[in-house]
Amino acid sequence: MSTPPRMIEVRENVLKQNDRLARALRKRFQEAGVYVVSLVSSPGSGKTAFLEKTLARLKPICRVAALVGDLATENDAERLARAEVPVRQITTGTVCHLEAQMVERALEDWNLQELDCLFIENVGNMVCPSSYDLGEDMRLVLMSVTEGEDKPLKYPTIFNTADIAIITKIDLAAAVEFDSEAAHNSIQSVRPGMQVLHVSAKTGQGIPEWLEFLRSRFAS
Amino acid sequence: MSTPPRMIEVRENVLKQNDRLARALRKRFQEAGVYVVSLVSSPGSGKTAFLEKTLARLKPICRVAALVGDLATENDAERLARAEVPVRQITTGTVCHLEAQMVERALEDWNLQELDCLFIENVGNMVCPSSYDLGEDMRLVLMSVTEGEDKPLKYPTIFNTADIAIITKIDLAAAVEFDSEAAHNSIQSVRPGMQVLHVSAKTGQGIPEWLEFLRSRFAS
Repeated sequence: MSTPPRMIEVRENVLKQNDRLARALRKRFQEAGVYVVSLVSSPGSGKTAFLEKTLARLKPICRVAALVGDLATENDAERLARAEVPVRQITTGTVCHLEAQMVERALEDWNLQELDCLFIENVGNMVCPSSYDLGEDMRLVLMSVTEGEDKPLKYPTIFNTADIAIITKIDLAAAVEFDSEAAHNSIQSVRPGMQVLHVSAKTGQGIPEWLEFLRSRFAS
Repeated sequence: MSTPPRMIEVRENVLKQNDRLARALRKRFQEAGVYVVSLVSSPGSGKTAFLEKTLARLKPICRVAALVGDLATENDAERLARAEVPVRQITTGTVCHLEAQMVERALEDWNLQELDCLFIENVGNMVCPSSYDLGEDMRLVLMSVTEGEDKPLKYPTIFNTADIAIITKIDLAAAVEFDSEAAHNSIQSVRPGMQVLHVSAKTGQGIPEWLEFLRSRFAS
């Protein structure tokens, strides 16, 4: 908008380079038989709590691992490590999203053959992560009931580039007077037909449905 | 991090240009006697609800107006217009933050002499808005009790560039088991001495303290 043309050109080159790296990553994942799921949302939507629950449930039945992005701190990696699966933090410094190269570097000394499923938790941001392919098979967009039902209308691209929408903190729905119908209408208007799941990492509500969805994609 | 040197150089030029424009804006605001407050937070932290309450309380005592940034939709401008004060939406398209030039354009046909206080609500994003000066006198960073007490540690720059931290949705503190002490410790560790207010736009808790803080800054 206010960005001069040269900036746009350079940004497109960065994106092209990212796309090339992401394609190479996707090929590596496929060859190693690893199914890769990325998670995007606002800061504080509950990505880490959701992932913690998911890793704990999957650990007894398959080999899972996680990469987790943040500008600073290793807090999320420490939380996820409680599930006793391999976890690595990617600290991005001032970069507001993960890029394929960061994922590639974080995996440098990992043997992908030893994994069935890898989760990549992006930096909390509803805008820029939508532009960066990480070589994942499935992208989840999460929004919590506390954020407002019109988030999909305000951040359409992130919903358009995701495969499923997860509405989190559903245990707080009554306390915040969450309007489920309005939220679904917002999602459907930017991405008609998108599947939506309601979950609570706290109570476990919706987690079986989510794992069933994941299993169906993983098997296909 | 993974960005090539040329990209960084161009980005710095964009920032320098933004800084020049922001300085010119600040001068215009000062000459017109308008006090300018910007609001930054994650999507869904309650910036608009907080601003709605603030505008309604200020309207009887001074001439207020608001600019509100989003990627898409005019929803926030429509909400704020209920306070019956001048409001204009800035839609940024795919740009994840406001820039000084967008503010300048949005104000083109406004007579600043007719205002005492202007609020600028940024796009919901905890990263990039921190790098863009908008010519404001005061920057608020908001975080809701639902987002997690370690947000300041994960997004230190946005707290470092703000003048006051507002913890929103305090009416939900018990429901989400908000740890106030942990949140304050996080804030103080990235920005020692930062003033923190607890508010609820729903119940009105903390709003008088916030208006008193604003009045003290405005008067100085």
